[in-house]
Parts: sequence; C-alpha cells; structure tokens
Amino acid sequence: MNGAQALLRTLVDAGVTVCFGNPGTSEMHFVAALDAVPEMRGVLGLFEGAVTGAADGYARMAGKPAATLLHLGPGLANGLANLHNARRARTGIVNVVGDHATYHKQYDAPLESDIESLSGTVGWTRTSASTEALAADAAEAVAVARSGRIATLILPADISWGDGGKPAAPLDAPVRPTVADNVVQSIVDVLRSGESTVILLGNVGTRERAIRAANRISQATGVKLFAETFPARIERGAGVPALERLGYLAEQVTWQLTDVRDLVLAGTKSPVSFFAYPGKPSDLVPDDCKVHVLAEPGDDITAALEAVAAIVAPDVEPVLQAENRPELPTGELTPQNWVDVIGALLPENAVIIDESNTSGLLLPTATAGAPKHDVLTLTGGSIGFGLPNAVGAAVACPDRPVICLQADGSAMYTASALWTMARENLNVTTVVLSNRSYAILKLELQRVGAESTGPKALDWLDLSRPDLDFVALATGMGIPATRATTAEELAEQFRAAQGKEGPHVIEAIVPTLF
Amino acid sequence: MNGAQALLRTLVDAGVTVCFGNPGTSEMHFVAALDAVPEMRGVLGLFEGAVTGAADGYARMAGKPAATLLHLGPGLANGLANLHNARRARTGIVNVVGDHATYHKQYDAPLESDIESLSGTVGWTRTSASTEALAADAAEAVAVARSGRIATLILPADISWGDGGKPAAPLDAPVRPTVADNVVQSIVDVLRSGESTVILLGNVGTRERAIRAANRISQATGVKLFAETFPARIERGAGVPALERLGYLAEQVTWQLTDVRDLVLAGTKSPVSFFAYPGKPSDLVPDDCKVHVLAEPGDDITAALEAVAAIVAPDVEPVLQAENRPELPTGELTPQNWVDVIGALLPENAVIIDESNTSGLLLPTATAGAPKHDVLTLTGGSIGFGLPNAVGAAVACPDRPVICLQADGSAMYTASALWTMARENLNVTTVVLSNRSYAILKLELQRVGAESTGPKALDWLDLSRPDLDFVALATGMGIPATRATTAEELAEQFRAAQGKEGPHVIEAIVPTLF
Repeated sequence: MNGAQALLRTLVDAGVTVCFGNPGTSEMHFVAALDAVPEMRGVLGLFEGAVTGAADGYARMAGKPAATLLHLGPGLANGLANLHNARRARTGIVNVVGDHATYHKQYDAPLESDIESLSGTVGWTRTSASTEALAADAAEAVAVARSGRIATLILPADISWGDGGKPAAPLDAPVRPTVADNVVQSIVDVLRSGESTVILLGNVGTRERAIRAANRISQATGVKLFAETFPARIERGAGVPALERLGYLAEQVTWQLTDVRDLVLAGTKSPVSFFAYPGKPSDLVPDDCKVHVLAEPGDDITAALEAVAAIVAPDVEPVLQAENRPELPTGELTPQNWVDVIGALLPENAVIIDESNTSGLLLPTATAGAPKHDVLTLTGGSIGFGLPNAVGAAVACPDRPVICLQADGSAMYTASALWTMARENLNVTTVVLSNRSYAILKLELQRVGAESTGPKALDWLDLSRPDLDFVALATGMGIPATRATTAEELAEQFRAAQGKEGPHVIEAIVPTLF
Repeated sequence: MNGAQALLRTLVDAGVTVCFGNPGTSEMHFVAALDAVPEMRGVLGLFEGAVTGAADGYARMAGKPAATLLHLGPGLANGLANLHNARRARTGIVNVVGDHATYHKQYDAPLESDIESLSGTVGWTRTSASTEALAADAAEAVAVARSGRIATLILPADISWGDGGKPAAPLDAPVRPTVADNVVQSIVDVLRSGESTVILLGNVGTRERAIRAANRISQATGVKLFAETFPARIERGAGVPALERLGYLAEQVTWQLTDVRDLVLAGTKSPVSFFAYPGKPSDLVPDDCKVHVLAEPGDDITAALEAVAAIVAPDVEPVLQAENRPELPTGELTPQNWVDVIGALLPENAVIIDESNTSGLLLPTATAGAPKHDVLTLTGGSIGFGLPNAVGAAVACPDRPVICLQADGSAMYTASALWTMARENLNVTTVVLSNRSYAILKLELQRVGAESTGPKALDWLDLSRPDLDFVALATGMGIPATRATTAEELAEQFRAAQGKEGPHVIEAIVPTLF
C-alpha cells in the first residue's frame, strides 16, 4: 500500500468520505488511489476557490469535515479566500496540498513556493515527513478539523507514492467543553438583574435546539435575543422561534443595542464594525454596557443555554414562528418583490445559501414564516462563497432542495462552481441577482466619506459595460437557465426549477437599492 | 491632499500609469483618488487573478510595472497564483493591498487576516505606517518593482484617507549590473575549448538583440543555443535568428543536452525537471557537464553576450529566420493543423500569449517563419495565466494584435478576464483549444507511474461531463464568439477576427494528443 492509499483509507475510516479536488501532476498518486478506496467520493472542481467553498458548505450541513485536494502553493492560494470564510465559520476542513517530492524541493522548480506560510494564515499545518507517518498525520488533521478548524496536510509527492503506507485509526472526536455551573449561575444573575439585556447567539447557538432554549429564556426574563450578523448556519422559519440577526451596518447595530446594559455572548464575539469608517466607532458595544460570556464558540453552547433555561424558565414553552408567507407579487422585479417570491415559494426543508448581498436586504423578513429551513451566510466577507457553498450543501444533503441566492458581482469570483453542479446533477436552484453593479460599494463610497467622487471612480463600481449574461454563462457550463424581469416570471421559473431534478439558474434582473 | 491621492501621484510620477484593480470598502479612497490623478488609467477586473495576471502581461510588454489594487488578505490571496507566475517571470508589479484602519485591526473584524505572510511568499512587502510616509513607501515599491520583483504595499484605510499626504519623487531606476571582463573572458575560453557546449538563454537573453549576439557566437564557435523552457518573453519569427526552447519533459531535455560538456547560463538557471518522477533525475544537467555563469537573470545579459560576440565573432553577421509559413491546411481540426492555421495567418507584429499547453506542442515549429512576434509563456506553472496576460499585453501595446492561445481547462481559472477585454475593447483574438480534458494529466498520470488507474481517477481528468461551451461563456461576458471544428472554419474565423477591432473568441474543438 502506498502513502496515498493509506491516507485515503485513514480519512474514510475517520468519517471523511467526500473529497473536493482540483489536482495536478504532484497529486496523481492521490487521484489514482481514489479507485482503491471506493468509500471516498471524489468531486472535481475547475478552480480551487470552488473546491474549498464546497468543502465549507458540505461541513456546515453535514456536521463533519470533507477533504480537499489542491495542487501545490498556487492551488492552495486559489482556495484561500473561501478557506478564510470557512475559518470565520469555524468550519472544519482537511486540505491535502500536494507538494514536490522532498528531494526535488532543493531545485526550486517553477512551481516551488512557500506553502506553509500560506496555510498558516488559515489554521493548522503539517508537512508529512514520511510515508510511514502520513496516516497518523492524517488522523490528527481530521481531529483538528472536527474541532472546527482548518487543517492543512502538505503531501510531498514521494511521501504519497512511497511504499509502506499503513492506515491509522481515527482519533477520538473532540468534545465541546461543558460550561461550568458557576458561569451558568452568574449569567442567571445577570438575566435577573432587571437591566436591559441582550443575548447574542453564534456558532451552534443559531441552531434550532439552542434557539428554543434561548427563546424560553427570553420569554421568562424579557431579555432580547439576536443572532450574530453572519451565522455559519441558522435554522429558521415556521416551527422554529424567530431570531433576528444583528445588522451589517454599524448604525443598525447601534440602534439594535440602544440602552442595552448587559450583553451575554453565547458562542460568538462581541460585535464590531465590519469596516472602519472615519469618525465612527469600531467597537459596537454601547459605552455603559457590560459584556458577559456564557459560552465560547467551541463550548457546548446548546447545553449552556438549556442549563440557563432550566433555572429561569423551567415551565416555559418556546414561542414558535407561525407559517406565514408573503402574497405572490406582480410587476417588474424590485429589491422588495423578488424576496417575496422566494418567501412565497420556498420549498419544504430548503437550504438557502445567501450571498444576495444588497439585493437581499429584505430577504430575512420575507422568508421568516416560510417552511423551516437553514440559511448559510458569508461569514468572512470574502465574496464568491455562494455557488461553491451550494455545491457542498447539495452534496451533503442530496434530499433537500438547495436555494442559492447569489449577487452578480460576487458570482464572478467562483462561477465555475456551476459546472460542478451540472456534473454532479445537484439539486440547486440558483437565483442570480443581477443589478449590474458593485452596489455595496456605491453605498460604502459614501459611508467612508470619500469626497469628490468622479466618473473614473464610479466606473469601477459599474458592471454594466458590458452586461454579464448569466443565462449564457450557466448554459456554457451545462446548466439550464432562464431570465426573469418580472415577479411573475421569477415565480414561474422558480416553481419550474423545483419541479425538476438537477441544477437550474435563474437570472433575476433586479435594480440596485443605491 | 489625502494619502491615496499622494500615493497615486507618486506612482504616476514614477512612470506607473496603469492600475488593474478589484476594490472593496477599504480601498474606496484609493478609487475616489483616481479622478484626482487623471494620468492613472484604471482597469477593472472581476477577480483578482485576472488583475494580477494583467499586471504581469502589461509589464512583460511595456517594460515597466503596473500597479494592482486588491482588497485585503482574500483579495491578495485570489491574486497570488498569477503573482507566482510573475515572480518566476521576474516581472515587476506594485501591489497596493488595502487593509483595515490601523486602529480597527485589534477587533479582528471578519475580513481581518495575515496579509504580510501571504505577500511575503512572492516578494517585497511594506505596511505603510503613516500618511506622511506613504508616498516614500510607494516610491520605494516602484524601485523594487523596476528591479524585476513583486512589491506589495499594504495600505491601511486610515493611512489612505488621512490628510497630510505629499507626493514623493521617483527613486533612480535600478541598473542591470555589467558582467565583469574577466567573466566574459572565462566564457570565451570555454567556448574556444572545443568541447560540446550549450548556451542557455533566459530573461532579456530571449529578446532580439541578445539573440542576435548569441547567434553570432554560435556561428563562430559551433556552440548550440537554447532558450529556457518557459521564457517570460521571447522574440522570434522572420528576421530574428531562430532559437529553440528546452523541452518541458525531462526526457526531451536529456536528449537536447546529450553529450554536452559545458553549459553556459545567460540569464537563467541550470535546467531542472518541472516535477519529480519516481526513479528519474531532477537535475537535468548531464553528469559530466560543467556549468558556467555568464550572466545572472538580473545582470546586463545583452551586453555580456555582445561582449563575448565582439571577441569570438567580430565580423560575423547573425543568420536570420526567413519568412516561411505553413500552407493553410484543411479537414477536421487536429493538434497539427490548428497550429498551421496560426502559422499561416499570424498577423504582423503580433503578441502571442501561449497557454495552449498540450494542444500547442507543435506551435513553435508552425510559427517559426511567421512575421516577427513576441511570445509570452507560462513561467511559473500556475495555470490561468493566459487570458489575464492577454489583457495586460493589449493594454501595454494597443497597436499590436494580441493572439491568446488558451487551453480549455486552464481558461476556467481566470475566465472573467474576457469581460475586461470586452470592457476595454482590447484587440485580443483568443483561440480556446477545447480538448475537454486535463490532457497533460493523462500524460502525467502515466509518467509518475501511478498504477491501477481506474474510472474514478480518469473521471477527474475528463472535462466532457458536461462539455464547456466557450462560445456561450464568451458571449455571456460580452465578446463575439464562434466555434471551429475544421481547419477551414478556424482560418475563416481567425481572419475575420483580425479584420475587426476589439476582442474575439474562437472555440477550436481539437482532439487531445493523449
């Protein structure tokens, strides 16, 4: 058994059964080994940003890591932006990055580069030193990934093709630390103090069981609840207690936290401004507000919230969101009516990948009373997450409809993920929101106080010269696609897409908000 | 004057008059400053890999650096693969990477990441510490770039928007060191020794003036000449002495260097295998061959060759390649006949961007006697260089036809460069070689000795499920496109493209060699 075969066997034995990859020569033995380990599913991407984003979406929905296969430093570099998002989502991923043979590195061949410096920016790194050690390294990488971190295993070609590989047994899966009773009690004291209090939920704190506990606490004590601005995965809709998210704009958060004296963190950090703006605060916690930590992101957040609820709300039932969909709208598409179409027609048990950005400002309200669904959001701000995450979510959840709501500008960073959707015949309906501009930057240009904005600056925010035609782009990658300019067309096309297996793209021409 | 304005003025005063960019919120003051500095041309890309690749192509043809504008760590990460190629080409580039305001970094906002560790992998890095220091930092960055290195200037938002910016004067451009007389004489002694000798040319050693000197030396002494495998820019065709390149495959190089006892390096390194292969050597210099250095890549290679020629070939004229085009072929496209079409119809004074990979194996022969032209090649092995480099070359040389010969798999890493071609109405004719596979990997899979190749492995080298439709993709990005399946169609479409301004895409359906 060579190293690659032992590696793949170790990954599979540890529960890592999907590998998203884009290989090169130095990874050929890994690719060849896919046939020796039939339990490993290989999913090819045409660009590494699509590969790493797929691994992120997979892990958010599967609750366990996928592997990636990347080609040397440039391959890893191409995948870093979506690894950044995964790091912010606390998604576990096992990257296998091929490298030159150990004896070849001294020659500084054209593809030689400093891989460890790249991977070090997103998490744990190990360069495997021998074929014998490789499987143990892989088992350790899986354990790191299972703790919600990105683990990069650098695999020199000769370690991969060398004989003497032997699979390693999986390590114990990490357990989320339990929050101590005295911490629970101290939070109970805060909640009972009578001051204006907010509990901010993140990580698994935005999943149904935690939200139910938090809702009971809220009812019993009157505290307000918010989800963090960009949750990795939030469960919502009919049958789940409603949970508002903190806003993206600092001004919104300031308004949401007005008069709050105690902020309790359950699985997230205290809120900061996404960017700095001249003369505006970066720290969004009100001046006279104390911050308390119930649970760190890696802790057993759900149990901590349930422990608090057991004390302050032992007999309180959660208030669940009623089913309540918008009416189907009519007329030319607007930032308001396209979200109403989605709210009105969202299928049961959907997974929404939300990179709709400015076009989706009104989406949470429109879908609040739709059937229960998950929403994955852009946790790290690195655009181009939507289409790849949709690939991963659909691979993880083949029986659930995946709805990818994708801004046009952001789509172009990782558009080739559409091809993988076609190749794997994934049940993804992508709605591309074409406003033909970097609309967010039109807003931000004003917010940062950039004066004397002229035609050259505005030209850089304009994507209409020429218009991108997403029907042609999707068709070019093998996906049936249509264009909607009215709410009626969007509704008809969205319904039709739900009725057929496999991927569909709808380009929705929506005017910009700004 | 704010920092951004002083920065742009400093760049322009130092001769950097094009900025390829993809901005975000933290770069809005830089974008706004474009209007205050009219001499700076801004060229928008939809993805940072297209931006950095364009800067590479621009500098290879303009002989001076462009700037890039990139958005924080993820923006730089997306651009690293083509920066890797630029580093291997010894192309100078000034990256301006926006960062959070200095006081904002402590909050670990979602887009915070370790930018310096990324930029350090490709070259020089400076994080500007104050608005006052920014312009001097920029002047230094330009000087670094003019020496053929990648310079990254990290620009915190508050340094950019702060008042008190003052432009800095350009630093003296670096001068290539002259090769010492005794080194020239020692090489002359080698050439006159009567042993079988090769001169290997790289960097500006593959430009016309250097090639003429080398050709004179070869005629006078009988030494053989080769260009390095992947030159950054090679001038060739009718009127320039012919110059064969070293092969990509180690086996080819071994054959080319058979019985060579002295290898003289003029602007390049001694040849090594691109990848390692089990049981095969990495160092491709024959065992009993001595390596001599006439000039390092940064030296005045041309003057060194001319100094040698003045001694060994004072009265020898170079032998120039005669004009000699292939006949226009007919029939279904093959790896042989498509290159003959290009050779037969290549316009005067063309710039070829060659990322045709396996499909282009026969291209150098077919174009050897075409009118004089430049060829830019994939120096660093990081695929996705072709379309972006074509953008940059066309911006640098608006009066020259740019011919981008682009393999299909590689095209998908940076395909959005097509949109920038349309936006800037660049005279680029792109021929996409669609063989619908990672053909090189089919070859490499065998060469690395991967045994028991099964259907899962082969599936990862196959791009036909579904077929990519480059006519649709190009049309979707605003470029007129056609498809050719025969040599006649390719010829007709190629001719038609040369007759019209602006970009064109031809998808040529060419079977794979392997």
